[in-house]
Amino acid sequence: MIFPNVRIVLVETSHPGNIGASARAMKNMAITNLVLVSPQRFPDEQALFRAVSALDVVNEAKVVDSVEEAIVDCQLVIGTSARGRRIPWPMLDPKGCGEKVVAESGEGHEVAILFGREDRGLSNQELQQCHFHVNIPTGEAYSSLNLAMAVQVICYEVLQAKLAGAPEQSWDMDYASSADMERLYEHLEETLIQVGFHDPDNPRQLMTRLRRLFNRIRPDQMEISILRGILSSINRLDN
Amino acid sequence: MIFPNVRIVLVETSHPGNIGASARAMKNMAITNLVLVSPQRFPDEQALFRAVSALDVVNEAKVVDSVEEAIVDCQLVIGTSARGRRIPWPMLDPKGCGEKVVAESGEGHEVAILFGREDRGLSNQELQQCHFHVNIPTGEAYSSLNLAMAVQVICYEVLQAKLAGAPEQSWDMDYASSADMERLYEHLEETLIQVGFHDPDNPRQLMTRLRRLFNRIRPDQMEISILRGILSSINRLDN
Repeated sequence: MIFPNVRIVLVETSHPGNIGASARAMKNMAITNLVLVSPQRFPDEQALFRAVSALDVVNEAKVVDSVEEAIVDCQLVIGTSARGRRIPWPMLDPKGCGEKVVAESGEGHEVAILFGREDRGLSNQELQQCHFHVNIPTGEAYSSLNLAMAVQVICYEVLQAKLAGAPEQSWDMDYASSADMERLYEHLEETLIQVGFHDPDNPRQLMTRLRRLFNRIRPDQMEISILRGILSSINRLDN
Repeated sequence: MIFPNVRIVLVETSHPGNIGASARAMKNMAITNLVLVSPQRFPDEQALFRAVSALDVVNEAKVVDSVEEAIVDCQLVIGTSARGRRIPWPMLDPKGCGEKVVAESGEGHEVAILFGREDRGLSNQELQQCHFHVNIPTGEAYSSLNLAMAVQVICYEVLQAKLAGAPEQSWDMDYASSADMERLYEHLEETLIQVGFHDPDNPRQLMTRLRRLFNRIRPDQMEISILRGILSSINRLDN
């Protein structure tokens, strides 16, 4: 398998035909791990029909209930995003996305690329769980790509980066997983409430901004331990 | 219009859904000229359904009877090809294809990109009318892209090259059109028969090799006049 630790995550897909067409697009580009978050109709004949010779990808797709579950063990999470967001996030273009996926998956990191609903894409909450957002540049007259077409373009750039021999990236510690990061954010939020900096009844965008900050840093596992240790020390102050 | 002189040519498409999905893929990438060579079912509801907001591209598509007619005025013709051919042709990868299309269309040349039948691609005879072939690299396990997906990848690379500001190419004379080239090949074949070099009953691959040679040279209009003049001089020898 060329990309054993790269997964494509389709979130609440409406049309099973798009699941099948995405599976075909993935397998054409040598990516075979498909995760479906609460698909509206699945299993479904249309998914198999459009998959053609990628039936294996559809049949082995993992179905889960939430994005959190889909990415829990991932160290790099990239979300596709059509629109500019109120709070800008670190962005990749599709080519840069392909290079990053190849570099990090080559290091053994678990990588997820998220694709949102046909009509509304990913929610802000889902986008904030990502390290990077990737946007496919389009013409101005019509910017909304079909879901499976977006999967095709992104997977195409991943395979091209692999074939071009994108340099692998190295680091002395493993990056924190999504689950580690979620625990950090929970711990951080509790602590900020404890110290009186954060009012959950008037949260404004504090946690969003902190998520963006720490997702940009991409702490490794030792750094996460240090940060959690600092928070625990603060927690003990009150007692 | 960003690409007024770039056309996508779909040859003998079987499924009208693929025509609609191709139209959407094109418009997403700011390419709007669609030419259909003998589509099996067109017009058709499925083409409109899959086009979504690219109905204009489908409704304004030009339907013709032959590849020759589709490219008659073109100065750059690129054909998509999945397989290695017995006689190799000058090849582009999708990125190189995008750059070439932007460079030449920016000079005002008429450019056509040809996509073949869902099951069999372009015929050898059609591929031999091209200056370049373009191949989309795939994984080994499954190399056959859906037609509209191939249109998406190629059009994506054209728009990316445009957005990256690919350098435009300049030349002092216009390139010969496909029609000019066909007249040259006819004239050349007649002349080779006349001089006893070519036996139409035992043609082997002579004309294919000569097509490849002259398509690679890409004569400009003055050079075509010179070549035709030489042939006419030879024609007069016998009389």
